[in-house]
Amino acid sequence: MFNKTNALSRSRRQRPLARNAKKREQSNKIPTPQSDSKSGLRVIPLGGNEEVGRNMTLFEYGGDIIILDMGLQFPEEDMPGIDYIIPNINYLKGKEKRIRGVILSHGHLDHIGAAPILLRNLGYPPVIGRDMTIAMVKKKMEDFQKGSAQHLKTMRVKSASDKIRLGKFGVEFFEVEHSIMDAVGVIIKTPDGTVIHPGDWTMEKNPASGKLVTYNHLSKLPGPRILMLESLGAIVTNPSRTTEEEMYRNLEKLISEAAGKIIIGTFSSQIRRIGYILEYAEKIGKKVALDGYSMKMNVEIAKELGYIKMHKETFISVSEIQKYPENRIIIVCTGAQGEVNAVLSRIITDNHKHIRIKKNDTVIFSSSVIPGNERTIQRLKDNLYRKCDNVIHSDIMDVHTSGHCSAQDIQEMLRQVRPHFFLPVYANHYMLKEAEKLAVRIGFLKNNIFVLDNGNILEVQKGKAKILPKKVDTSYVMVDGLGVGDIGQVVLRDRQVLSADGMFVITVLLDSKTKEVVGNIQITSRGFIYVKDNFDLVNETKRRVQKAIKETTSRNTSAERKFIEDNIREVVGKFLFQKTERRPMVLPVVIEV
Amino acid sequence: MFNKTNALSRSRRQRPLARNAKKREQSNKIPTPQSDSKSGLRVIPLGGNEEVGRNMTLFEYGGDIIILDMGLQFPEEDMPGIDYIIPNINYLKGKEKRIRGVILSHGHLDHIGAAPILLRNLGYPPVIGRDMTIAMVKKKMEDFQKGSAQHLKTMRVKSASDKIRLGKFGVEFFEVEHSIMDAVGVIIKTPDGTVIHPGDWTMEKNPASGKLVTYNHLSKLPGPRILMLESLGAIVTNPSRTTEEEMYRNLEKLISEAAGKIIIGTFSSQIRRIGYILEYAEKIGKKVALDGYSMKMNVEIAKELGYIKMHKETFISVSEIQKYPENRIIIVCTGAQGEVNAVLSRIITDNHKHIRIKKNDTVIFSSSVIPGNERTIQRLKDNLYRKCDNVIHSDIMDVHTSGHCSAQDIQEMLRQVRPHFFLPVYANHYMLKEAEKLAVRIGFLKNNIFVLDNGNILEVQKGKAKILPKKVDTSYVMVDGLGVGDIGQVVLRDRQVLSADGMFVITVLLDSKTKEVVGNIQITSRGFIYVKDNFDLVNETKRRVQKAIKETTSRNTSAERKFIEDNIREVVGKFLFQKTERRPMVLPVVIEV
Repeated sequence: MFNKTNALSRSRRQRPLARNAKKREQSNKIPTPQSDSKSGLRVIPLGGNEEVGRNMTLFEYGGDIIILDMGLQFPEEDMPGIDYIIPNINYLKGKEKRIRGVILSHGHLDHIGAAPILLRNLGYPPVIGRDMTIAMVKKKMEDFQKGSAQHLKTMRVKSASDKIRLGKFGVEFFEVEHSIMDAVGVIIKTPDGTVIHPGDWTMEKNPASGKLVTYNHLSKLPGPRILMLESLGAIVTNPSRTTEEEMYRNLEKLISEAAGKIIIGTFSSQIRRIGYILEYAEKIGKKVALDGYSMKMNVEIAKELGYIKMHKETFISVSEIQKYPENRIIIVCTGAQGEVNAVLSRIITDNHKHIRIKKNDTVIFSSSVIPGNERTIQRLKDNLYRKCDNVIHSDIMDVHTSGHCSAQDIQEMLRQVRPHFFLPVYANHYMLKEAEKLAVRIGFLKNNIFVLDNGNILEVQKGKAKILPKKVDTSYVMVDGLGVGDIGQVVLRDRQVLSADGMFVITVLLDSKTKEVVGNIQITSRGFIYVKDNFDLVNETKRRVQKAIKETTSRNTSAERKFIEDNIREVVGKFLFQKTERRPMVLPVVIEV
Repeated sequence: MFNKTNALSRSRRQRPLARNAKKREQSNKIPTPQSDSKSGLRVIPLGGNEEVGRNMTLFEYGGDIIILDMGLQFPEEDMPGIDYIIPNINYLKGKEKRIRGVILSHGHLDHIGAAPILLRNLGYPPVIGRDMTIAMVKKKMEDFQKGSAQHLKTMRVKSASDKIRLGKFGVEFFEVEHSIMDAVGVIIKTPDGTVIHPGDWTMEKNPASGKLVTYNHLSKLPGPRILMLESLGAIVTNPSRTTEEEMYRNLEKLISEAAGKIIIGTFSSQIRRIGYILEYAEKIGKKVALDGYSMKMNVEIAKELGYIKMHKETFISVSEIQKYPENRIIIVCTGAQGEVNAVLSRIITDNHKHIRIKKNDTVIFSSSVIPGNERTIQRLKDNLYRKCDNVIHSDIMDVHTSGHCSAQDIQEMLRQVRPHFFLPVYANHYMLKEAEKLAVRIGFLKNNIFVLDNGNILEVQKGKAKILPKKVDTSYVMVDGLGVGDIGQVVLRDRQVLSADGMFVITVLLDSKTKEVVGNIQITSRGFIYVKDNFDLVNETKRRVQKAIKETTSRNTSAERKFIEDNIREVVGKFLFQKTERRPMVLPVVIEV
């Protein structure tokens, strides 16, 4: 709720709304509807531990449950070998029949990527979304398991003015701007409160579409209004960030003036931008080859739905590029993050079947750097600059804009929607706290802001909101190959140890009666030292093992195998550390014969 | 060399120098001195493959060699377990007697960190540097090997006006600005050319010291002048970056106004800034506790040399902080990059013996994010925001400035020094290419710019410069524990495989005559699956191993052990992938009894 004095003194931009603070405060008094549910409206963000609620959010009311999004998260650096992480749905076990629907805000992987597994595990509840989103989920399901898309039950959202009912929930929609077609904001109505959730969003002052999206109409929704707001941008305070308009002008200039062929590396998720480039290419008579599975798939879907309009002659296959003059070719591809086997990397390392880079080509990185990929991308650029004189990236020219909001946008959204409760979500905790500060700075009362963690339960009832003391299970569910949730902390820790200093296996045969070593002790080592260069160390280790066994068994002739193994592990671990200051994983295998 | 027309048309800032391009061009004609050396002056940057010449540069003239810096590099993400990388000195083998001296530009690890190993391996050639630098090398040597500093032969640079002779080289110095005291620029004079090398540098328009450093006087040095210039800043084009002055005002405000204690996380290498904070703390009557080994060491050295002036009562130990009111305490510590066992991490996770964070404390990250550490730092901030209401970092306020140059600084330096040849160094290849573009944009001729790789040999003779076709060995020399250079690509690749999917050891005893399996097949697995939850998989694997052995030995009763092992590896690898889509390292150990 807006606080009068703060709003007046702190708001940087004196908007008409802020000047009329008295009136606004009255109209923003939190309504206290009579609840018809014992526990009111409950909101539960789920997912990994970092970006709160980004992958999945649960809403409960009067026994009914609806789900917003089913996304995946990419693994952290300390999760070697893990493919991705999906939301933990332990809380929903036994409640499957109460799930009235799964609403999908848009088709990006962090919002739909876990759907193939989670829909299956929840018995295929109905899925609600716009055409592009539904089409992408179907594709993902088929990729995951052939034939599984036939289980999908869908309710199509034909326009943002659609209204649907899911059990005790009324669900409505609103337009938002994001980097993919058919992204949609969601309104969830219950007698105890109305949740307003734009999903991923940005606010373009100068959108390429020419259509300015505003949110003032949401302030008319019945209260208490609970705004759940993606707040990744809370720390993006640079007021001079690139507009979509500027970015497109730069891209058009580069594309039209290029002397050689053009290679544009971007995310396959930037499907609106890719569509724009394709249509511009057609306008100036260039041919476009797409490369990268996800990119081709996304463009295919967008074309089928009529979201990208162009002649089929404009598209060529990468195998056909030799047929055209170099300066009529545009290649749009994946791999701008330096992913080892992605298209751009293969082009740069001369491992691409059809594409060779030349000095006068133009290579454009139309993407941001995902945190953690910085050094890989630096290396990619190094190699690229060796082969090409015209490499363009954001350090040099504005050829990318974020599909996400800025700090100013967050404040603007709050001013327009005028919620009673503010829940910053979809970002790391520290960014959510910064979003809280942004709201307080324009007069929002701190008491009405809730910074949740994944698994927290916010209960809204009779005009009051509170975080319940109990939390829902959000322990990581990691997917590795075919295994879902079977990799735990023990296995991960072992992988970390193995990666740091390798392993050292010692195989010993013992006479089961005399407990004396039979034959040679065998050493098998990987990732520790190069054994062939270290015979002395290996032989000395064998002697120490022999001695350790002798000492153990002479003291205690009935010594158990496990006891002998533990002893070997300790002696060898110490010895190797002393000699090398490395700590390989030591694995003794003692077999009695 | 400046090119008249380009200089006039392209220079953004019309400086007097640029307006007088005609005159300048004449004065910048490359002189063609008569060489008295068969091969002229040779310049060879060494080190890892990324930041060219940052860790070490060799200069050769008439059989004499001098070395600039002996630094280390931290490992890449694909080098698990490696501690650091040092320059490869294979090229110097057999040439040790020709080394006339090792000049150290300043005391940061990427410039002196490899000295303990390399000085030893080269027979302790004389080391030339200013006091702080020499003191830090001594400390590093003692840390590495007790007593080794006694071998150090030093020549002290007392002031920037010192001139020394090292064999056929004349060596002089000039003042530069950097984040550590006693950083010094180096001038290397030979009959064939004069190298000007500031080392790491920045250009402060408003230095805290009040002393503006300029480089115009270097343009008077005899030609051809070869400017080797740190060009990390070539992609730093934001003209409004924070000045030192602004940063210090912000820090002072935070420190003087804090309600609770202040914790400042920064790099121990930021020793000038730490000194400034200490002196300011004393001025306003606060006490300072330092924490972190390297930080304490650096401050100790700077104090001993008189570079930080303060009463000893201002310093307190972290164990004493309870004795003072919270708002009189400043803690300056390491760990702002999220290093697991560094001070800041221990404070945040409540694992620090003496320091507990309270809500009204102020925590300041006065550091940049090292590429690759982004996600770790995000997590650190998340945890910090949970415990403290006042966390300040660069996203929020300017509390850090880089000790390195910007794109504008590079152009300004070129204008002041007016070199005949320009060698951008100390950065990734793509940044060096951008530095080249910056130079061309203000009229420098592309032919006189040389973007070298590590190991390239640039030869300057009779007014001409060229890169020789042969390269010097720069393969990585990795340090892991006590091992220097003993980890190669095979061991690293094994570590990567082990980290991704773990390992799977199969131990089988075979009757040496019948070749039949004796006893139980043993499976030992780590980092792959949790064996106790996967008995079926393990048992099925054992059956397959049994079958594979039978098939191998029945066909060929004299089958060699290696052949049997290879067969097991293939069968088990395939089976496990089919069942799990994971590829653990499969290690069969077959023992005949």
